[in-house]
This record gives sequence, C-alpha cells and structure tokens, in this order.
Amino acid sequence: MDVARELRTGVAEAVFCEGKTRDQVVAIAQAIYKRTGGLLATRASRETFDAVAKVIPRARYNEAARLITAGGRKKSGRGRIAVVSAGTSDIPVAEEAAATCEFLGNRVERVYDVGVAGIHRLFGHLDVLKQASVVVVAAGMEGALASVVGGLVSVPVVGVPTSVGYGASFKGLASLLGMLNSCAPGVTVVNIDNGFGAGVAASLINRKT
Amino acid sequence: MDVARELRTGVAEAVFCEGKTRDQVVAIAQAIYKRTGGLLATRASRETFDAVAKVIPRARYNEAARLITAGGRKKSGRGRIAVVSAGTSDIPVAEEAAATCEFLGNRVERVYDVGVAGIHRLFGHLDVLKQASVVVVAAGMEGALASVVGGLVSVPVVGVPTSVGYGASFKGLASLLGMLNSCAPGVTVVNIDNGFGAGVAASLINRKT
Amino acid sequence: MDVARELRTGVAEAVFCEGKTRDQVVAIAQAIYKRTGGLLATRASRETFDAVAKVIPRARYNEAARLITAGGRKKSGRGRIAVVSAGTSDIPVAEEAAATCEFLGNRVERVYDVGVAGIHRLFGHLDVLKQASVVVVAAGMEGALASVVGGLVSVPVVGVPTSVGYGASFKGLASLLGMLNSCAPGVTVVNIDNGFGAGVAASLINRKT
Amino acid sequence: MDVARELRTGVAEAVFCEGKTRDQVVAIAQAIYKRTGGLLATRASRETFDAVAKVIPRARYNEAARLITAGGRKKSGRGRIAVVSAGTSDIPVAEEAAATCEFLGNRVERVYDVGVAGIHRLFGHLDVLKQASVVVVAAGMEGALASVVGGLVSVPVVGVPTSVGYGASFKGLASLLGMLNSCAPGVTVVNIDNGFGAGVAASLINRKT
Amino acid sequence: MDVARELRTGVAEAVFCEGKTRDQVVAIAQAIYKRTGGLLATRASRETFDAVAKVIPRARYNEAARLITAGGRKKSGRGRIAVVSAGTSDIPVAEEAAATCEFLGNRVERVYDVGVAGIHRLFGHLDVLKQASVVVVAAGMEGALASVVGGLVSVPVVGVPTSVGYGASFKGLASLLGMLNSCAPGVTVVNIDNGFGAGVAASLINRKT
Amino acid sequence: MDVARELRTGVAEAVFCEGKTRDQVVAIAQAIYKRTGGLLATRASRETFDAVAKVIPRARYNEAARLITAGGRKKSGRGRIAVVSAGTSDIPVAEEAAATCEFLGNRVERVYDVGVAGIHRLFGHLDVLKQASVVVVAAGMEGALASVVGGLVSVPVVGVPTSVGYGASFKGLASLLGMLNSCAPGVTVVNIDNGFGAGVAASLINRKT
Amino acid sequence: MDVARELRTGVAEAVFCEGKTRDQVVAIAQAIYKRTGGLLATRASRETFDAVAKVIPRARYNEAARLITAGGRKKSGRGRIAVVSAGTSDIPVAEEAAATCEFLGNRVERVYDVGVAGIHRLFGHLDVLKQASVVVVAAGMEGALASVVGGLVSVPVVGVPTSVGYGASFKGLASLLGMLNSCAPGVTVVNIDNGFGAGVAASLINRKT
Amino acid sequence: MDVARELRTGVAEAVFCEGKTRDQVVAIAQAIYKRTGGLLATRASRETFDAVAKVIPRARYNEAARLITAGGRKKSGRGRIAVVSAGTSDIPVAEEAAATCEFLGNRVERVYDVGVAGIHRLFGHLDVLKQASVVVVAAGMEGALASVVGGLVSVPVVGVPTSVGYGASFKGLASLLGMLNSCAPGVTVVNIDNGFGAGVAASLINRKT
Repeated sequence: MDVARELRTGVAEAVFCEGKTRDQVVAIAQAIYKRTGGLLATRASRETFDAVAKVIPRARYNEAARLITAGGRKKSGRGRIAVVSAGTSDIPVAEEAAATCEFLGNRVERVYDVGVAGIHRLFGHLDVLKQASVVVVAAGMEGALASVVGGLVSVPVVGVPTSVGYGASFKGLASLLGMLNSCAPGVTVVNIDNGFGAGVAASLINRKT
Repeated sequence: MDVARELRTGVAEAVFCEGKTRDQVVAIAQAIYKRTGGLLATRASRETFDAVAKVIPRARYNEAARLITAGGRKKSGRGRIAVVSAGTSDIPVAEEAAATCEFLGNRVERVYDVGVAGIHRLFGHLDVLKQASVVVVAAGMEGALASVVGGLVSVPVVGVPTSVGYGASFKGLASLLGMLNSCAPGVTVVNIDNGFGAGVAASLINRKT
Repeated sequence: MDVARELRTGVAEAVFCEGKTRDQVVAIAQAIYKRTGGLLATRASRETFDAVAKVIPRARYNEAARLITAGGRKKSGRGRIAVVSAGTSDIPVAEEAAATCEFLGNRVERVYDVGVAGIHRLFGHLDVLKQASVVVVAAGMEGALASVVGGLVSVPVVGVPTSVGYGASFKGLASLLGMLNSCAPGVTVVNIDNGFGAGVAASLINRKT
Repeated sequence: MDVARELRTGVAEAVFCEGKTRDQVVAIAQAIYKRTGGLLATRASRETFDAVAKVIPRARYNEAARLITAGGRKKSGRGRIAVVSAGTSDIPVAEEAAATCEFLGNRVERVYDVGVAGIHRLFGHLDVLKQASVVVVAAGMEGALASVVGGLVSVPVVGVPTSVGYGASFKGLASLLGMLNSCAPGVTVVNIDNGFGAGVAASLINRKT
Repeated sequence: MDVARELRTGVAEAVFCEGKTRDQVVAIAQAIYKRTGGLLATRASRETFDAVAKVIPRARYNEAARLITAGGRKKSGRGRIAVVSAGTSDIPVAEEAAATCEFLGNRVERVYDVGVAGIHRLFGHLDVLKQASVVVVAAGMEGALASVVGGLVSVPVVGVPTSVGYGASFKGLASLLGMLNSCAPGVTVVNIDNGFGAGVAASLINRKT
Repeated sequence: MDVARELRTGVAEAVFCEGKTRDQVVAIAQAIYKRTGGLLATRASRETFDAVAKVIPRARYNEAARLITAGGRKKSGRGRIAVVSAGTSDIPVAEEAAATCEFLGNRVERVYDVGVAGIHRLFGHLDVLKQASVVVVAAGMEGALASVVGGLVSVPVVGVPTSVGYGASFKGLASLLGMLNSCAPGVTVVNIDNGFGAGVAASLINRKT
Repeated sequence: MDVARELRTGVAEAVFCEGKTRDQVVAIAQAIYKRTGGLLATRASRETFDAVAKVIPRARYNEAARLITAGGRKKSGRGRIAVVSAGTSDIPVAEEAAATCEFLGNRVERVYDVGVAGIHRLFGHLDVLKQASVVVVAAGMEGALASVVGGLVSVPVVGVPTSVGYGASFKGLASLLGMLNSCAPGVTVVNIDNGFGAGVAASLINRKT
Repeated sequence: MDVARELRTGVAEAVFCEGKTRDQVVAIAQAIYKRTGGLLATRASRETFDAVAKVIPRARYNEAARLITAGGRKKSGRGRIAVVSAGTSDIPVAEEAAATCEFLGNRVERVYDVGVAGIHRLFGHLDVLKQASVVVVAAGMEGALASVVGGLVSVPVVGVPTSVGYGASFKGLASLLGMLNSCAPGVTVVNIDNGFGAGVAASLINRKT
C-alpha cells in the first residue's frame, strides 16, 4: 500500500465526519491515529470531539473550523500560505483550509472579512497577500474576491466557493461559476465548501521539492 | 393608447431586430418613425441599416452597439450616467446601453476595459464613477465588476451580465448569478446582453421628476 | 474606512441574521448601534429580537418583515416609494423592502395582494403606482406582476422574485427568470427574497442628488 | 389499428417535418394523404411545400405557421377557439396552433400582439376572449400573458411557451416555468413552441361529445 | 370585483394552506366561507382541519387528499372525469385533483395504481377511460402513464407530474419533462403536485357551455 | 497491452468519427484494421466512408446508422437481441445499436416505430420481445417506451435516450431522466444517442460465458 | 395478471418503504408475503423491521442495506456477481444491490472501499472482478470507479451513482453524469442510489436462459 | 500600471482570439508585442496566424494548440510540468496548456492518450508523472483521469475539463463536475477547455520563489 504518498498529501490522517455516526468516527479516528500518529477530522461537531478526545487525549478541537486534530507535520513549507475570506459566514470554510495547512506543516496568515463590497479593507492587507507563496480565497455569494485577489498577486490562487448565500446563489453554485470564470489567470478552484481540499492543494504547492 | 407613457419609457421608438427579416424591420421602423418622430433599432446589422437609411435618411448607425437611431430626446437627465465595461468583448452591450441612454436624452460617460483582473485601471476612473447619478456595469465571465463598483459608489448600479465567456460561463449565466448575488447592496440586474433594458432603466432613474 | 459611503447606502447599519447564532447577532448589533446610532437587522426571529432589545432598548420589531430596527434616517427622499406584492405569502419579502425604505428615510405606499390572477385589484391602485417615484414589486410563482406593473408606470421598477411557490417554481427560479425576461423595459431585478436589497436600491433611486 | 381514434385526435394526418429530408416528408405526406384524405405538415419550409404540392395538388401553404394542409375536418366544434399571442415573434407558434384548430374543424379568433407590457391592448379584445370556449395563449420571454388571460376568462386556457427571447429566457424555459407556475388556475401548458399540440388539445376541449 | 368569474373557476372558495399558520388558515377559511358559502382548503393537515371545523362545523376532511371542504357546487358537468394514478404514492395528488373536481360539481371515476410497469392493470380499466369526457393523470418517477393514456383516449388529458421518486427524478422534474414531451398529442400539463390546478382545469373542460 | 480484453468488448475495432477530420479517420481506421482485422466507425458521413473505402475495400456503409464496418465477429451470442425504437427519427440511433450488435457477432431483431402513443403497434411484436435475450430500446421525447417494454419482458433492457425532440426535451435530457426513473426494474441506461454503447452492453450481456 | 413475469424480475416481492408509514409497510409486506412467499423491503428502518417481524417471523434485517427480506429465490445464476463500492459511505447502496442479488438467487462477491484515489486497493481484487459474470459498481462523488472497472473487465458493468458527496456533487448528479459519459463501453447506469434496480438488472443479466 | 505583475503571470502577452475579428487580433497582437516583446495568442485559426505573421515575422503557429507565439520567457521553472490527456480529442486543450507552460519558461513532458478505459497505458508513464513538479490533466467525457492521476502523485494536479463528449456530457459539464468532486485531494480545477488558464496556474506553481 502506498502509505508514503498518502502521508505526503495528508490523506492518511484525514476523516470526513459528515454522514457518519459518532461511533464510526471514533473507530476510524482511532485506527488512523494508531497507524499514522496523527488525525485530521473535518466537519466534526463538539459532541464528536468529546467522544474522540476520550480515546485520543492529545486531540484538539478547532470550533470555528469544526475540525479535530492530533499530531500534525513539522513546519516545512517554502513560504507562508495566506487564507483570505470574504464575509464572517465564510470563516468556517476558511478555517478548515487554514487549519489543514497548519496540520500539514505550513505557516498560515489569515486575512478575514475583506469582501469586495468594501474593497479598501482588502487593500489594507496587500503586503500579506504579496508575500505569500500561495493564497487560498474562501468566498460565497458571487465569489468576486477570488478574481480581485487573482489580479493583485503573482502566486497561485486556490478558490474555495462557499455555500453562503440564498436564493440565486443556489447553495454555492453562483460562487463556483464565478471563480471558474475568473478573468484573472492563475486561479484554480475546488468544490463548494471544500476547505480541506483547498488546504491540501495549497500545502502541496507550498512544499519544498 | 398610452403613447405618452411609452414615449417616456422609450418603448415607443424601439424595435428589436434579431429574428426579424430586413423587410420586417424596415416596415416597422417606418411606422414607428412616422408615429413618434424617432427610432431606436437594436441588434441591427449594417445591411439592415442600409435598408432602413433608404426610407429614413436621418438614420445613423452605431456599429459598436449595432444600433440604428433617428431623432432622440432632448438632453434632460438630472446628472450623468456612467457606463462601465469589463473587457473589450463587452463593449457591444455597453455601447447598446450607452447609446440608448443618449437617445433618451442623457449625458453619458464611458469607462471601458476596467475588469477586476487589473483593478488599478478601474481606480483611475473613480472620479467619473462617483460623480455619476447612476452607473451601468456591463461584464461577462464572472461579472465581479458589478460588485466592486457597487462597493465604491453610493448611487444606483444597474448590472448587465454579458454572454462573453465560454465553458462554465454557460452563455452569461455565471455573470448573471454573480450580479444577482452581489455582496454590494444597491445593485440591480437586467437580462443577459440586455444593454437596451439597462439603458432604459438608467434613463428612468436619471429622469427629473 | 469609507463609512460615509456605507451610511448613505444603508450597509453600515445592516446585519443579516440568518445563519448566525443569537449571541453573534446581539454582539454585532451592539457594535453597529454604537458605531452608527442605528440598526437594521433582517431575517430576525422574535427570540433574536428579545435578546437584542435587552441591549438596545430602542429597538423595534416588525413581525411581518422579520426585521429589527433602531434609529433610522430622516425623511428625505424625492418622492414616495410604492411597494407592491402579489399574494399574501409574498408579504414578508415586501415588508422587508418597505421597512428598509422607511429606515433609510423614505415614505412608502404599500399595495399588497394584487396578483395578476385578479387584475382588477391592481387597477384599483393605479393612482398610487403612477404617483410613486419608484416601484418595488415582490412576487413569487410566475412573477408576472413585475411585467404588468412595468407596463403601467413610467418610473423605475425594482422586481424582487420571492421563493413562494412549489414544484416547478424551483424555490423562486421561475419568478426570477420571469422578471429578468420582462417584456416591459425599465424593470431591474434583485436576488430571490432579497427585500433588503430591493429596499436599498429603491432608496438610492429615490435620493435627492 | 385504431385509425378512428387517431382521426379524432388529429394524429392520423400529421407529420412533423423538422429533422426529416424533403424526400422523406413527401413520401410520408403521400402515404398519409392516401390513407386519411387529409394532411397537416408542421414546421415545413416553402421548399418542402413546393415538393409536396407536386404530388398533392390540393395542398395549401400557411407561411406564417410554416404549415402545409390538405383537406381537413368539417366545422364541428362547440364554440370558438381564441388564439392569443404576446409579440410579433410569437406569431409563427400562434399560427401553428390556429391553423391546426381550423384543420380539425374549429372556428378560430386570432388576437395577436397583446403582450402585457401594454395591457390596454389586451383589454380591447376582452369580448372575444370571454366568448371563446377555450383560449390558446402563445407567449415567449416571461410568458405572463397566460396568467393575465387565465385571470380574465372562465374557460380552459392552454399556454404555449415560445422560444422567443434571449439570455435568461434559456430558449423558452423562462416562459415555460412562468406558465406552469401561473397563479391563475385553469391554465395548462404544452411543450415550448408546440403550437400543434396546443391546437390539438384546444380542439379536443372544443369537441361536441 | 369579478366574483362571478372566480366562483365559476373555483378560485373564490380555495385556500392553499402550506406555508400558512393554523390561525391564518382559520381566519381566511372563515372569510371565504362567509363570502361564498363554500370552502376548499388544500394541503391541510388534520390539526388544521380540527381548528377549521370548530368555526365551520359543516367542514369535512379528506385525509388522502389532505383537503378540507365545505359546501361545493351542484353536480353539473357534461360527463365524467377520470382521475388516473400510477403508484400508491401518487394518490395524495390524484385525490386532490379528484376531490377538487367533485367540489366543483363533477362526477369522478378513480383509476388508481395502474403504472406502466404493469400495463395489463391499466388495460383492465379501458372502458372507464374511454367513457370519460376528460382524463387527469397523476404520475411521478418517469410519468410515462400520461403518454400511454394519451395514446388510448380521444378526449383531453391533463397530466399532473408528482414529486414521487428520488435521485434523478429531481423532485418531479423528470415526470414534468416527460409529460411536456409526450408523444401523444392532446396532453397538457400543470405544475408538479398541482392536483388542485388539474382539478380546476378538468372541471372547466367538463363544464356545459 | 490488453488487446484480448479490448477485442472481447469491441473497443479495439471502434472509432468515433464526430469531431475528427476525414484524414484523421482514414489514418486511424487503417491502423485499427491492420491491427485487428476489423473496423467499426460510428457517426461517419458518406464522404468519410468513400475515403475509408479507398484504403479498406471490404468496408461497407450502413447509411441509416451512419456506420462503417469491415470484418466483424463470428455469430456467437446466447440468443437474439431485440432493438426497439419509438419513432422514425430514433432509427439512426437504433440502427447504430443494431449494427454494433451484429458486428460483435449477435443476431438482431429490429422492431421500429412502436412508440407508446400507439401502443397497439408495440403489442403486435410481443413475441419477438419475449423471445429475446436482451432488449435495446431507443426513444427520444419522453422515452416512455423503455418503461413499457421493461414492464413486458423478463430479460435485461438497455435504454438509449435519443436527442429527438425540441423545446423542453433539452436535447435528450427529458428522455434520459425518464429512463433513469423508470418504474420498471431491470432497465439500465446509456448516454443520449449512444447507440454504440448500448450495442456493446447488449452484446456483453448476450455473450456465452 | 402477469405474476410469473413479476416473480422472475423480483418486482412481486418488493416494497419501497421510503415515504410510507410503518402501518402501510406492514400491510403491504403481509399481502406480498402471502401472495408470493417472499419479501424484499428496501429503505427500511429498524423500527419498520420490528413491526414487520411481528407479522412475518421469518423476516431478517440487513442493517447496512436497510433491507428486510423473507424467503428468496434458490441459487440459480450462471456465475457470480461482483458488487464493488468506492467509499465507506457508498456501502448502504452497494449492500442494497448485493442483498437484492442474493435474494434473487445469485452468489455475490463484495469488493468494498476501493475508490480510485488509492487505485492499488482495486488492483488487489482484480481476480474477483475478472471471474464475475457481471459487476455492479456503486460510487458517489465523481463516480470514476465505474469507468476504471469498465476498462478492466469484459463483462457487463452496471453503475449505481450514489448521492455521497456535497457541494457540486449536487446529490449524486456529478456521479450520474460521470457514469453516463464513461469512456469504457459496456457500462450502463441506473438511478442515483438505486441499489435495488442495479441488483435486479445484474440478476437478470446473470440468469440462465 | 502593474506591468511587472502581469509579465510574471503571463497576462501581459496574452490575447484570446475567439470572438474577435482578424483585424482586431492583428492590432492587439502588434500592440502587445511592441509593449512586452512577446505574444501568446490562444484559439487562433491558421488564417489569423497568417495575418499576424505579416506584422510579427517571428511569430510561430502551433496547429494542434491553435496558438500563436512570439518570444517567450527563459527556461526558469523549479521542475518539469507533466501535461496528461485522456483521448485524442482532448489534445488541442492539452497542447494549449503545454505550449502556454513552455512560453512561460517551463520544461514540459507530454503524456497523451492515456484515458482510464485502458489504464495500463497510464501506468506505462508513472515515472514521468512522479518526477514532475506539477501535473496538468486534460480530459473530457467523465474526466476520471484527474482523480486517478491525483491518487498516484504527491504534487499539485490541475484539472482541465474539456468539452469533448456528447449528450449528457453537456459540453464539458460532466467532466467539470467530476473533477470538482474528485476523491483525490490536491486536485484543483479550471474552466472547461481552459488550457491557457491551466498552463498559467501550473507555471505559477512551478516558479522558483
């Protein structure tokens, strides 16, 4: 089995909790932790964390990201990863990305609540964006932030559309289409609300090779 | 018949050429011109214009907007209407809006080719935007320009998504959804490529009442 | 920070409650009220209001609109804003628009329950519509009311499709597409159920400039 | 084979020309004419008609409806069928419906170009609508005419959405959804551009039984 | 107000309960009953019925149709209306249609559980279908029953797609599209799950004129 | 390379011509024929065939199926494959399936033009259907034929939705959804217009193992 | 009634529990069991099972598949059916397929948790796949497993897209489209989450004829 | 103007030819070449190239990629970029990506025609994939190749869905959704057929920083 490859990408330690019972998560978490010495459980409720913490006392809970971690990689990335979010409702997804990056050994700079309706807020953080080696942008509604950031930096931008919005946002579709059609080249996109995937991609981009 | 109302909104002089034969357009154009003393024919080819010009010698052709006009209203709006476009391919729609505004008696400021991928270009025109009494934004692809402009001005913004793009733009759907979900309040939207409708709406907003 | 611009458009006082906890809303509301002297909280339950009222005793609750307000602007618009709705189920959205307009300093005329299936009811209110300086139309199902009103008045019409309906209404999509394709020019559209956005747009249109 | 039933519903004489070669249409038309003594060929070009007329000299061409007929039923319906259309571009579909009704033995009243943007035009024809035994409404764009008519008459209304429109009309989808969600009960709907189907349904409704 | 027309179509007595509180339904029901002497409340729970029955003792509850009725029209249609359904899960919609027809003064024949997967069951009821003056077909999943019935009878067929199904039925969309594309002419369609609308349409078709 | 497996499934000899130039097809066809001794070119025009025939004189053209074949397998299936189609416009797809089955060594029974609008035509062929070892059903519009056939036989049914139709058929989507939601179990589905895929699947089902 | 045919396909013993009350399921289950001597109830909760078991003591519950069975056919298929699933969340659908196959008299080999992200796991089971007479593949997310398996075996493959996923999986649509567009010929597809249908189809394919 | 940033990302030299006239492209190309000393014109026909070559004699045409280049960056990336494609029809998009990477100074390894239906072909190139610093995957139909590659390598994977396919591929939507839902983390996605965007993203990832 190709464990080495899985360890490098972070698959080996990850479990997606949504749609699983608390008992199932605990069992899987324990098996993962035993095999790899680490754990990254996404979309986890506090109740799930409490159950996991009984068997893995080192486990920590990131409430904003709804993420359980234990262990994690040594700091090792080439540079810093900036994680940017548009509105306060996008923070859970942004945090899932940020915490995943940290678990995988990267230093992260958070730039939250800088949606384009008040673009002066974004410009207040230009230095952070320009010094990052990769930028993750989490935005719902129309997702315009990914295009604006993509036009400001010359490093890879990973867009995470979020399901924040209502009506014609169609649960994130508007933001997804917006990011896919970004007029700024160099923007790539992951699935709606997929903070974990964005974090893994950003970590791979930031790896020393 | 409520001609007065139609004259005020611009319906009385307008004909949509797409899907009509040249002969049909000429006949309708002549009838409109006789009744109202004006003509605003949208989506017109040069061939159609040549045929119309034979019966209405005053007619003029705006090639970029694919628009035939004859006559038009006296200058009368409260302020200026700014028409903004993202890319060069959006210009036909932007011009349709601008020329409609002018036909209906408004002064228009054009601000073209200021897409968000190079946001410094937009900022070079902030004065024009801030002094307008209403702003029309024509943008395809992800349509982010409407949100950015909406966040910069405190006058009504009318967004016109264009069908510019390919793949997951789905012929303007991405831009349409983007503008509908704009995080900047005060942005309203018309149909994809509907420069005429945006021009009418902006003119109504700019009317002295 | 561009507070002036935000105050003019009503962004500064607004908080969208849906998807936030009661504690989060209370904290944000307090911060907004302290900074601006006003508050406009949309999609708020009575429970949320009770919690807000403890810290902002001036706060008032509009049950039909699910809206909390405190303070608000001085009366200042150029004319009256007519808010029209098709069915009784559209009233929450219509009220959200109307109350937003009032909060932002406009006089509002409500014309409710005038859907096109009984078009004589609408005609009984023609005077109100014709004297308004802008009309907001909230309608679900097929949204035909926006087109009919758009054909009757010569002022800007802002359509708000609502999610009222079932089956092939696809949660407001039918009404949204109907309004976007309105055969009456001068109709612009906001997101499904976005009474707040319609109110802001109508207020901007009605501003003295 | 159930020819009697087919003759009653009009299937026996009908051929849909789109997507068939001219030779195929001629061959099928001849076979139908021989078997039933009648012919109703829809979506036929003039070239196709010329070829058909060589073998069926009685054949007549309705250019507006793009329809070839030969023979047809005796006048026999209970009342008159009103066929209403919104814009001039909807006339081909409306004519297909009207000519189908006439072929099947019904008297038809045409009320064209009465879209809801100028609702006074529709009201000028109320008598015709109220005296019909069934009304067919052909409308593209937002299709609001079906709801308005459905609210004015107390006979069955058959809506035919047309593909007239652009952008977010999505080739008739907007009109189709609009009619399906009509707030006026008693409106039923056929496929986009299906004038023939609307004509058959209206004829069945108008049959003496 | 055009009460006469409303009484003829059944709008006057109808109230759609979904999305209304029990108190709202009771108040509306009472007002309707006082004005028209009848009541037809659709999508009503038993709890709602219990509350209505306290103020309108004549009210009756049809559990399968989730329908409250009081009063109703005298028997008056030209013939019988057949209401056909595909599966047992389609019965609530079929019953809503059937009970609406009965309320509006028609005799109804029910033919339930005759989906095309076991087409011999349908053929056992051919006589009933052929003697009806109009047929309502309620079917979910692929909705093929409407086409099959449309091919068997020579009277109008009103198709009601139901939301029965899962996965790629997309809550009735598959059935809706199926019925709209029926290869049997004479089939018209109402909104998904709209048994009431199908009942009104069938009643209008069956009226003596 | 796993040529043996490819030869068994028919991949080895197949080339899809659409979107390739005539020269490309000729080059690929020659290479395939040299390697396998057979050729099955789908979606081929007569012009393409003429070019292929110059280098592969044994090649034969099936005009209805738009298919070029050379060689082919020995007759070997367990039973007969019935290929059923609804309308004449579905025949190209049905023929593509039938000819693919024959090329792969199966005996095929064709049952064409038996759409459910005239269900008696289908019943005239029940014996053929019941004696087949697998049935392929090609149908556009609402695709109801797959469900009806699926309810009549006790062998596997492979449905091929075709793009025949217009308007709300959405280029085969209606038929695709119809077949996927078939109320008759044992029906499986391939892509729209994929006669080749249906033929391969039916051949695999009919193989002696 | 064609009971024989139904018994052969497994329709006779089947009841779909979702959307039915416990009492309804018990009543239908009893009737089926009395008539056929067997029972296959899909999408059943444990509570439903407990109720059924009181009246049919032989009934057994398969928790993973949410399936109640009683009786079942004698082992009779030509070969073994392999049921393959991508992730642990796909197991309920895979088990529904597997248990349906077993109920209908087939031997089944389960190959679970072999998604393409770790393709070495799939290759560890190649022997089982190659010796099967038909393979069922249950996969959510992008559904790529169906294509990969379809490229490895030379027997029929039945793909069951599952609704496992989030965001742009659109409840199984991504997997459904993926399987329909499989580049491996011989793959046919059933509805999303339709393990029962896949099991019936696989059983029909595996029958001795 | 931020030319430096544009030069780094490749925006400065790029022009998208589709939807522009030959004269427009020539004028824009000349201006770009004069300003930057380079040119990268995508979606260019040979006719367009011939016209460009007259004014920029250094220009070269890549027929497979439909790309005009002149100049280009010095070789400078950290490692090699592997560009992988599924079928021969995907090559234009793959070549657009590969040529863009080369223009921007990267060494590229091409691995074409390795679709998952014949997965042994892909495995023959594992070394190339594993030694790359980033992999671009171009695939139409179901797009499964991105997931399979994503599961084999531990570097970033950029997926480019192509519009290759028909029917339910919906012009690349199936592949797009497939890649967005990839079960292999680390896969990010660009717009359908956007080889240029994939090339820019891959180049940014491969840059020495």
